[in-house]
Amino acid sequence: MKDARTTLSKLTEIALRHYEMIQPGDNILVAVSGGKDSSCLAWDLALKRQWWDVPFEITACHVATDLADKGYAKPIDEAWLASRMTEWGIPYVRLDVPVAGRLKPGETMNCYWCATQRRTELMKYAQAHGFNKLALGHHMDDILETLFMNMMKKGEFATMPPVMPYKKYPLTVIRPLSLCEERQIIGCADELNLTSFTCSCSFNLEGERKKTRRLIDQITGDSSHIKRNIFASMSRVRPDYLA
Amino acid sequence: MKDARTTLSKLTEIALRHYEMIQPGDNILVAVSGGKDSSCLAWDLALKRQWWDVPFEITACHVATDLADKGYAKPIDEAWLASRMTEWGIPYVRLDVPVAGRLKPGETMNCYWCATQRRTELMKYAQAHGFNKLALGHHMDDILETLFMNMMKKGEFATMPPVMPYKKYPLTVIRPLSLCEERQIIGCADELNLTSFTCSCSFNLEGERKKTRRLIDQITGDSSHIKRNIFASMSRVRPDYLA
Repeated sequence: MKDARTTLSKLTEIALRHYEMIQPGDNILVAVSGGKDSSCLAWDLALKRQWWDVPFEITACHVATDLADKGYAKPIDEAWLASRMTEWGIPYVRLDVPVAGRLKPGETMNCYWCATQRRTELMKYAQAHGFNKLALGHHMDDILETLFMNMMKKGEFATMPPVMPYKKYPLTVIRPLSLCEERQIIGCADELNLTSFTCSCSFNLEGERKKTRRLIDQITGDSSHIKRNIFASMSRVRPDYLA
Repeated sequence: MKDARTTLSKLTEIALRHYEMIQPGDNILVAVSGGKDSSCLAWDLALKRQWWDVPFEITACHVATDLADKGYAKPIDEAWLASRMTEWGIPYVRLDVPVAGRLKPGETMNCYWCATQRRTELMKYAQAHGFNKLALGHHMDDILETLFMNMMKKGEFATMPPVMPYKKYPLTVIRPLSLCEERQIIGCADELNLTSFTCSCSFNLEGERKKTRRLIDQITGDSSHIKRNIFASMSRVRPDYLA
């Protein structure tokens, strides 16, 4: 029987090849929060770098916020994170971004704003330091949630794509876990003992997203087959059969 | 306060204009089952014919099957249906299609097969008698159900479109109720006393479709706003943000 890490490794390989995520000489900045998704991603890319068809470089980057200091979240065990990266032979950098401190009087913290702040800093850092790719740990369930939220709230058939080149910058976002379901990542993280930290930010409740996840569980009956069909529908849009 | 028939009439007007469903001189065959959807459709088109910007003709066509004779369904009150059409000034024709009798030994009846048989006969009749449009009574909930079933079962983003020109035949299918929710049609049918007959075919249970309808009710919380957003997502497909 396949173990969970083999499954994850195979699914990221399929995604990397199918979406042509890696080109020779790519210098990839991997965003690592300390959570299971991006930890599994870093672990997987570190291994693949050793045998992949073409050479590429990776560096892990952790955006350290002031969320714990300001009481929004429990502190992250950054020493643990840094030593995992060392163990896997991945150069590690830390970026300090006082997300909460940047709030202007009257503004309130929310997930979207915090994520945008952190993303912007990652992009700036990547460009200033010669990275041409930014790898993020979003998985299939994240992508389907965003798809449904966009359909239901914005009236758009759109989501976070596996590969997204920025138009204004010489930078491409890649999501190598696009074909992995969260439960597969959890299995892998368990095997690798990467479950020491999960995001504890009080805003991570993110009402809408959690609600959407439950809705998707309901409509798919938690069936991987149906989830994969919905995912596939994104690449099989039939304009003649739409409104 | 608007009454239900005014709402339905307005929504079909918006659909007819937005999707350019009617061109001058169109000769439209309206499929009438005797059920609430197609009855409201025929009623609405009969009224619109009197004041619409461009001239068009309509004829109602009922496909009479042997489903009741063979014990699959309760008989349809065709005399009632025919007299409604007369009342509304719509020429009425009846097509006999022995759907059940066409089953070969070993074949079993199902909704998809029966619907295809009836549709084919309607298309043949339309072409043989100079009709260039075929109007069907599918509404927004039908369209969303098919969208979700196609996403979940076939991995395609596709549904029954409001306007569908056949490639092989000089015939275009139009669905003027595309922007009406079923509850709005029920309201209109109630006002017009068109509820004498609802489809009683035992196969109308159509497990998958009913299940899908319940799922959509769950994910939308039965909100018209969210349903309309999902409907709108069909015309706002963003290829750069898909897999």
